[in-house]
Amino acid sequence: MENNKFVIDSEIKTTFVTNDIAQNIYQLVTELYPICRSITGNGVRETLKLIQQHIPLSVHEVPTDTQIFDWTVPKEWNIKDAYIKNSQGKKIVDFANSNLHVVSYSIPVHKKVFLTELKAHLSTLPEYPEWIPFRTSYYKEIWGFCLSHKQYSELNDEEYEVFIDSSLEPGHLTYGEYYIPGKSTDEVLISCHVCHPSLCNDNLSGIAIATFIAKHLSQTTPRYSYRFLWIPATLGSITWLALNEAKVNNIKHGLVLTCLGDSGKFTYKKSRRGDTEIDKVVAYVLKNSKQDYEIIDFFPYGYDERQYCSPGFNLAVGCLMRSPHGSFPEYHTSADNLNFVQPQYLAESFWQCSSILHILNNNDIYYNQNPKCEPQLGRRGLYQAYNGHQDSRLNQMAILWVLNLSDGQHTLLDIAERSGMSFEMIKSAADTLLAHNLLTTYIQHFNLNYK
Amino acid sequence: MENNKFVIDSEIKTTFVTNDIAQNIYQLVTELYPICRSITGNGVRETLKLIQQHIPLSVHEVPTDTQIFDWTVPKEWNIKDAYIKNSQGKKIVDFANSNLHVVSYSIPVHKKVFLTELKAHLSTLPEYPEWIPFRTSYYKEIWGFCLSHKQYSELNDEEYEVFIDSSLEPGHLTYGEYYIPGKSTDEVLISCHVCHPSLCNDNLSGIAIATFIAKHLSQTTPRYSYRFLWIPATLGSITWLALNEAKVNNIKHGLVLTCLGDSGKFTYKKSRRGDTEIDKVVAYVLKNSKQDYEIIDFFPYGYDERQYCSPGFNLAVGCLMRSPHGSFPEYHTSADNLNFVQPQYLAESFWQCSSILHILNNNDIYYNQNPKCEPQLGRRGLYQAYNGHQDSRLNQMAILWVLNLSDGQHTLLDIAERSGMSFEMIKSAADTLLAHNLLTTYIQHFNLNYK
Amino acid sequence: MENNKFVIDSEIKTTFVTNDIAQNIYQLVTELYPICRSITGNGVRETLKLIQQHIPLSVHEVPTDTQIFDWTVPKEWNIKDAYIKNSQGKKIVDFANSNLHVVSYSIPVHKKVFLTELKAHLSTLPEYPEWIPFRTSYYKEIWGFCLSHKQYSELNDEEYEVFIDSSLEPGHLTYGEYYIPGKSTDEVLISCHVCHPSLCNDNLSGIAIATFIAKHLSQTTPRYSYRFLWIPATLGSITWLALNEAKVNNIKHGLVLTCLGDSGKFTYKKSRRGDTEIDKVVAYVLKNSKQDYEIIDFFPYGYDERQYCSPGFNLAVGCLMRSPHGSFPEYHTSADNLNFVQPQYLAESFWQCSSILHILNNNDIYYNQNPKCEPQLGRRGLYQAYNGHQDSRLNQMAILWVLNLSDGQHTLLDIAERSGMSFEMIKSAADTLLAHNLLTTYIQHFNLNYK
Repeated sequence: MENNKFVIDSEIKTTFVTNDIAQNIYQLVTELYPICRSITGNGVRETLKLIQQHIPLSVHEVPTDTQIFDWTVPKEWNIKDAYIKNSQGKKIVDFANSNLHVVSYSIPVHKKVFLTELKAHLSTLPEYPEWIPFRTSYYKEIWGFCLSHKQYSELNDEEYEVFIDSSLEPGHLTYGEYYIPGKSTDEVLISCHVCHPSLCNDNLSGIAIATFIAKHLSQTTPRYSYRFLWIPATLGSITWLALNEAKVNNIKHGLVLTCLGDSGKFTYKKSRRGDTEIDKVVAYVLKNSKQDYEIIDFFPYGYDERQYCSPGFNLAVGCLMRSPHGSFPEYHTSADNLNFVQPQYLAESFWQCSSILHILNNNDIYYNQNPKCEPQLGRRGLYQAYNGHQDSRLNQMAILWVLNLSDGQHTLLDIAERSGMSFEMIKSAADTLLAHNLLTTYIQHFNLNYK
Repeated sequence: MENNKFVIDSEIKTTFVTNDIAQNIYQLVTELYPICRSITGNGVRETLKLIQQHIPLSVHEVPTDTQIFDWTVPKEWNIKDAYIKNSQGKKIVDFANSNLHVVSYSIPVHKKVFLTELKAHLSTLPEYPEWIPFRTSYYKEIWGFCLSHKQYSELNDEEYEVFIDSSLEPGHLTYGEYYIPGKSTDEVLISCHVCHPSLCNDNLSGIAIATFIAKHLSQTTPRYSYRFLWIPATLGSITWLALNEAKVNNIKHGLVLTCLGDSGKFTYKKSRRGDTEIDKVVAYVLKNSKQDYEIIDFFPYGYDERQYCSPGFNLAVGCLMRSPHGSFPEYHTSADNLNFVQPQYLAESFWQCSSILHILNNNDIYYNQNPKCEPQLGRRGLYQAYNGHQDSRLNQMAILWVLNLSDGQHTLLDIAERSGMSFEMIKSAADTLLAHNLLTTYIQHFNLNYK
Repeated sequence: MENNKFVIDSEIKTTFVTNDIAQNIYQLVTELYPICRSITGNGVRETLKLIQQHIPLSVHEVPTDTQIFDWTVPKEWNIKDAYIKNSQGKKIVDFANSNLHVVSYSIPVHKKVFLTELKAHLSTLPEYPEWIPFRTSYYKEIWGFCLSHKQYSELNDEEYEVFIDSSLEPGHLTYGEYYIPGKSTDEVLISCHVCHPSLCNDNLSGIAIATFIAKHLSQTTPRYSYRFLWIPATLGSITWLALNEAKVNNIKHGLVLTCLGDSGKFTYKKSRRGDTEIDKVVAYVLKNSKQDYEIIDFFPYGYDERQYCSPGFNLAVGCLMRSPHGSFPEYHTSADNLNFVQPQYLAESFWQCSSILHILNNNDIYYNQNPKCEPQLGRRGLYQAYNGHQDSRLNQMAILWVLNLSDGQHTLLDIAERSGMSFEMIKSAADTLLAHNLLTTYIQHFNLNYK
């Protein structure tokens, strides 16, 4: 599938015309869907293993009780089985049917309880009686079940057998990391969370899109190095930042990917700084995507941008979403399923991300080699008569704009914005001028030797 | 009287619930009303004496001919009596009835004059035939009377006896000053003019409100030190600035108070700099007062903000008013009387000032002690589940905003404005975080030892 | 002719009331119209000779092949005669009728050609069948004729004699320069192009207006020095900049003048920097001219502002026009003739330029000598009672504004803009204050000795 609405490297585009990116992403979501993930445990490991079928990510295991800034790595949680049986011994709630049935991090339990006591351990969604809610209790040791309100309403006043075969023990926090070295050691960070069980939009969509972005960037030598993180939300980013403080300064741009598979319009939450290059690039791509979209200011809630944008780091990391977490009723319920996300929306999100990274990758600053007056374009065959056709005139203007603003203070996107011309036309003019030695790159200009 | 529209220190609020601030302020205006004030003389001394019944202000006497920058302190003017008698010996204009009848700084006179000569010394307001105008002649030695245009029209062509028992002699310029030491030597200046005779809005309203603000701040130990000035307009501020140049740098914020007793909407004239903290605080308070208001740019006319904002000082001093001087017909006439100002408007102005000073007092800058990633709020009991009720969620957001922006570059008001939350909610979150040692103050952060 | 819409030096105004500036400018345009100008050659020399009847400009001759940055000075082109004769020997196209008939820089030719071959050398304007287009071929050695499309359509399929008696040989690039020393060595640059043959708006209008501006400035000692350039477009400015690099830093403000004789509204194209003093002054003058106008952002196309605003110079040079080049159908055709420009529009443009230069000349920064509090205006006779008439009140406010903002950081235009008062009123207040030693100039303030 090719999507002409987006601007992408011809290399990537070619790759994806032959494959079917929409189906590939959806397929990975489908494979990951049944796994019971939490902030620690085997569900994360299984998830990373499936991703490794696409890219050779590294799996990191951080032991329980490791100090990570103000936090410590918690005990590892695993679960094998869980159910509620009624007095006839019939499983009326069964973990095997949906891993949402058990409150994440529930401690093990096996006992008989009457309805009144049971109810204190049950969560439902009265306003959506068919759906099972997703609940967690990471820091308070309890046990609990989630079920549809419809089923809850039909419970009889009888004795029930509750069984949760879980373990909460010293172990590890597991996360995946994949580093693609680029021409520069400056990094782009792509982060997504892997701690949610059978929920598709939040965040199998982000996991799968990050995977395929990584897969295809790995076939190129990008300008920036790329670091992909598949981590449990909050704890994962805190862990990575705490254990990799020395590397943080390399991160120049970043995106948290989440909720990218539903039919909603694109939403970009800006970095805390609000005017960084990634903020400008995403705004440009969304503005030019000819679709409705929304750009919102940073606020200190959400996913791992909270940690990347904490005041001690204040990284240039925004968050790309379609419908923002919390804004759609299916959020954190069993309705965030394989029907709620669709291949076409996943693919659109993939192309949108690709466009963003493409522009970021090409958003260079150049230096006009003849900054005093215009160079003589005519003798280089770069001068189009004014009465040329429309395209030539535009190219001519793009060339003049790039020459005029290539003073080391304007990126190509700055030039595109000021001239009102497209990034591609400005980039193409810059390439032409570079080929004629009328521009140099930052690296050449300062005679740098980076990589 | 308590006014829930305004945000105030609970301490002050309690004090004022038991007293009746509206009546107290109006009572002081009523007591001050009969006194004949001018830029010098006993009227100012009597005024300050009445204020001393509320607060122990210092009375300063600056001798005539003292050099104050480009000016000199003028002769002192006093007046005992004045009248115009008609040919039947009947007092048709009597200073005892209204001190506005005599042009302020009139030289003594006692002679008989015919109507034509008399008229050259009379001022009226033809457009408001019932009202007596207020006129002054501080720098040109003349004598003159003011009267209603109605009375003026009825004057017969006869001989009149004019008598003004005034003195214009070497003496002093008198002003009042009251300093409340705070935790910091940084000062807030509150300035009002005391040079107008029986005129209520301009400026007994400002005088009385400043008095009660001072009275109640004196019962606290505010963050800033406070300096209150009751001075003759123009000359008084020039005198104070000339004689206290060494102290001027301590003044970090200030307000000139005038015309605060009428029914008009609040008007704030910004400082010359226009974007100082006092400008922001007043704008915030007015915006949140749920009343119509207006904020106007600085212009070099008006009251003592002209001097405080002269380019050599350029202090962060604005001017708080209801109807601005010159904008209402009663301005500088006998109609600016005890009916024109009303207790409820005076009290509203008092609460508005209190709110401004309350926010200024609390508008601290804090330092997040765990700036790298969020601190673990849960183990400190500061984490509210997302499915908590509305208030908890807001508190949670306030806590996250304060942590995120407490980087030493944002005041609490900055955080309130950026988050869209109320100052009180942000302040309360900061207090909570401070109590848990998650924030420190500026003083602690830099290990300062101020006071 | 005097035009009260514009603000000008009374000295200049007086001069022009006695002369008739509109007729003078139009007369010069009329004299220059028949000359066949190009980027080099005798046409430019004749043009400069006619201008020398008004001002003693210097004529510079720069030899062919001189290196000027990335360019070289081209061969000099001259032409004596040219025609196309039909098979009956009748001149159907004759250079003597219009110098637009020959493509500028045509190489010499004399031969017989059939219609098909001839047509490859003909240019017309099908959309304006009566007009002859203006065409050039400076860098590709060709020959060609231009004619009306009407005449072209009537050409018969016969043999024609084509004759161009031109020469393209080593010679010189010629330009005119006129320097008026001012009180400061800081310069204002006024630049116009002289490379167009019989075209009036583009750019005999600019040439003639620059000439009369120079003529009348030469009778004064302006604050700034003035440099006027009459140059071939592009090559001329590149030549001047290349040969005078050491002087470029003196240029503080500048205007390119072109297309100033038609009936269109004024258009100002801002400098590349966009917020320079010349940009502000022109915006002020246009805003106050009570006529429709347009201000457009810089773009790297147009006339010599392209070179002055190239990134290596980035001078504060804008471009003043009425209808912008390229925006009117008569542009670069025989219809840009002596009817298209009119004396009244030329005169309006002259006054507009004069106003701009007048304000620039007077847009000083002053220093209040009594910056701490207001000076006592009364004892200097500068205080108007508040109940004075409207004009006095405005003067009073102008005086207070100038005092308040004369802190060395505000020009008089800044003060006019902030106060909302006219530049003239602010300037007049500054003059009054200067006369009373309440202000000093920048030069006095820093005890500079410039000139």
